[in-house]
Amino acid sequence: MSAEASTWPRVVILGGGFAGLYAARELRRARAQITLIDKSNHHLFQPLLYQVATASLSPADIARPIRTVLKRQRNCRVMLAEATGIDRSRRVVTLADGEVPFDYLIVATGATHAYFGHDDWAALAPGLKTIDDALAIRQRFLLSFEAAEREPDAATRRAILTFIVVGGGPTGVELAGAMAEIARRAMPTEFRTIDTTTARIILIEGNERLLMSFPPSLSDRARRDLEALGVDVWLNARVTGVDADGVRLGDERIVARNVFWAAGVQASPIGRSLGAPVDRAGRVQVRPDLTVEGDDRIFVVGDLASIMDARTKQAVPGVAPAAMQMGRYAAGIIRREIRAGAKAGAREAFAYRDKGNLATIGRARAVGVIAGRHYTGWLAWFLWSTIHVLFLIGFKNRLIVMIQWAWAYWWFERGARLITGPAATALRALRGKREV
Amino acid sequence: MSAEASTWPRVVILGGGFAGLYAARELRRARAQITLIDKSNHHLFQPLLYQVATASLSPADIARPIRTVLKRQRNCRVMLAEATGIDRSRRVVTLADGEVPFDYLIVATGATHAYFGHDDWAALAPGLKTIDDALAIRQRFLLSFEAAEREPDAATRRAILTFIVVGGGPTGVELAGAMAEIARRAMPTEFRTIDTTTARIILIEGNERLLMSFPPSLSDRARRDLEALGVDVWLNARVTGVDADGVRLGDERIVARNVFWAAGVQASPIGRSLGAPVDRAGRVQVRPDLTVEGDDRIFVVGDLASIMDARTKQAVPGVAPAAMQMGRYAAGIIRREIRAGAKAGAREAFAYRDKGNLATIGRARAVGVIAGRHYTGWLAWFLWSTIHVLFLIGFKNRLIVMIQWAWAYWWFERGARLITGPAATALRALRGKREV
Repeated sequence: MSAEASTWPRVVILGGGFAGLYAARELRRARAQITLIDKSNHHLFQPLLYQVATASLSPADIARPIRTVLKRQRNCRVMLAEATGIDRSRRVVTLADGEVPFDYLIVATGATHAYFGHDDWAALAPGLKTIDDALAIRQRFLLSFEAAEREPDAATRRAILTFIVVGGGPTGVELAGAMAEIARRAMPTEFRTIDTTTARIILIEGNERLLMSFPPSLSDRARRDLEALGVDVWLNARVTGVDADGVRLGDERIVARNVFWAAGVQASPIGRSLGAPVDRAGRVQVRPDLTVEGDDRIFVVGDLASIMDARTKQAVPGVAPAAMQMGRYAAGIIRREIRAGAKAGAREAFAYRDKGNLATIGRARAVGVIAGRHYTGWLAWFLWSTIHVLFLIGFKNRLIVMIQWAWAYWWFERGARLITGPAATALRALRGKREV
Repeated sequence: MSAEASTWPRVVILGGGFAGLYAARELRRARAQITLIDKSNHHLFQPLLYQVATASLSPADIARPIRTVLKRQRNCRVMLAEATGIDRSRRVVTLADGEVPFDYLIVATGATHAYFGHDDWAALAPGLKTIDDALAIRQRFLLSFEAAEREPDAATRRAILTFIVVGGGPTGVELAGAMAEIARRAMPTEFRTIDTTTARIILIEGNERLLMSFPPSLSDRARRDLEALGVDVWLNARVTGVDADGVRLGDERIVARNVFWAAGVQASPIGRSLGAPVDRAGRVQVRPDLTVEGDDRIFVVGDLASIMDARTKQAVPGVAPAAMQMGRYAAGIIRREIRAGAKAGAREAFAYRDKGNLATIGRARAVGVIAGRHYTGWLAWFLWSTIHVLFLIGFKNRLIVMIQWAWAYWWFERGARLITGPAATALRALRGKREV
């Protein structure tokens, strides 16, 4: 940056997800000193994370260093650090090891799943939000088949080969579908003792249908597609307990050594440090221009923001396209105001453009709504694949993901069935778990 | 397997590396009940492991589940388990959680690096033998640049950006070369505060030249190539101490936050449980037919075996081709004896066919000897790349590795620069390390 640049306004962006990254890019030509802070070094293409958890893709296929993505944007520096709070009066973001002053702030630290107030379930039922989460789920899933292959007791074997996925949103549907496919298509010829097609995959949803953000007919189709893959779908079922041997649903009990969590929403705790009103999930209630009450220069975008769409009177959903749009919108305001040298009149309210919604169930199976039209089966799956590949960042990643998918499509083989860490020790622990 | 199969001789193979896997394959048509036991679920293409450690490849690119590799071999089952010992009188392999009886046994559990008797250095100076090792090194390497970017103190920054690689064999040379290339070619445009080209990479070798298994002229060329990449090569230098702030070499001290270990050889402890004579590194001294003293049906193959080549009167080196040849040789004897129904006369001594030796230094730089001819520079590197891609298991892995390499070649971009685990916390720990 030139010497003059040191007088430019400081824009701090917290979070390098879709919202944060699209905000930074929108400011690429702005006369601003931008700092993007994230606690991990990579931008993650979250919609494909379940494919890492189910051994189809490698982490690097869907993640790229934020630095690499922004390397040509000379007005932006990237900082690996964990923000601990925001001091609105002093205009600084506090870190665990320092602080960063700002003139404008865009908070985009997202949300994760929630255990309905039972945080102690987290250790028993891992969720899926980061690469580490995905690797932990992959590890548990793959190890179970290894443990079952060596387990002489039939009841224990059955418990080991019962997988429960809690939450029938897109992530839960995708996880359950992919797990069923691996057990039924990829693995059977590789084991000599167990029949992997007998593995039970149970998807539990508290509502009366899956994929609540889709039209009922598509929810129904997703359920039937999952059942065709061998997934047990339990609707109107509320998990009331989780322990090392399974889950409880009221009076009912399912014995299972593996429970995976894909339910609930819990906003990043950084939202609360803004001192603005938050909703039940901890999301910050923002004004129509995505700023927090009483502060025109602090924006909250992406999954952390709670906002009603001005046109549809519906909550803007916590999906990637909404995050991208919010990031771009907030950064656009900042860009224009920096150029104008002041607050540039009244700000137009944020309006979410819903371009459609797709969820995949398995090979050649998906459901979706695009421009009001419903899609199912192979065509929906093809649209889903194409759109997801196109939105991946980096040409090489696109190429590699396409190869991996083509392979899985034709040969049913998964590319990343690795158990890392001390596998044999973990297996003993899994086999040795106390029984009911 | 047919009912008759349960009367076939039981062949147990310990280890799914090159030696164990090639042994199993050699027995693919044998009337034998084969059990391959490994403590991890994947076969690892070790010669490319340094590329995982230096963020060029993903673990799944060079590893494949042993089950998948052997899925069509119906006479072989694969067991994820850790062997703890071998009971020769009872003819069983003992596991941490069970035991497995054998008629024939092939022990192929390999070797790892050694800390010259200072096992306490292991935590300070990670070595490179497993995928977890590679990920730990990658993490440390990448985190250092992140920490340096945020470090105001110049001396601390220098310590953070000093990387020491101990051991000038192929692994050490490859690690040092790749690290220098990333720091000088891939990273410079991505950082705003530090100049990554000032990172110091120091390669320390105790002998008077690098790559002792190569002719002296190639060792010299490798040193010059490394120096051209910016690596400091220290020869005749013996590490006498390692602590959190660097290494000591006699009276000399190098301040460095990162020390990586690629020296020494230490055989798998399972070798000692055979009760046969072992060499200083713990390798089992086998007879010319690779069996242990006093037992015609227990073979030791691969890096765990210590044997003089009958023709050359030289020790068979611990390299992948030797492991493959030994595995095939031992399994061939078993195959023939099973077919003959008895010990089939005198066994021909194992003879190592040395097909050549290649080591890579960086992009378009390598050295090698093939059929007595010396190769250097681009041609050696091209041979090295081609041979390594061809020996990878699985067509898809070959394709993906070629894409990754082509990308790195043209764009200097590395495919897998991910820091996993709690990165921000690890970074604080690295920055906060006590100074000398």
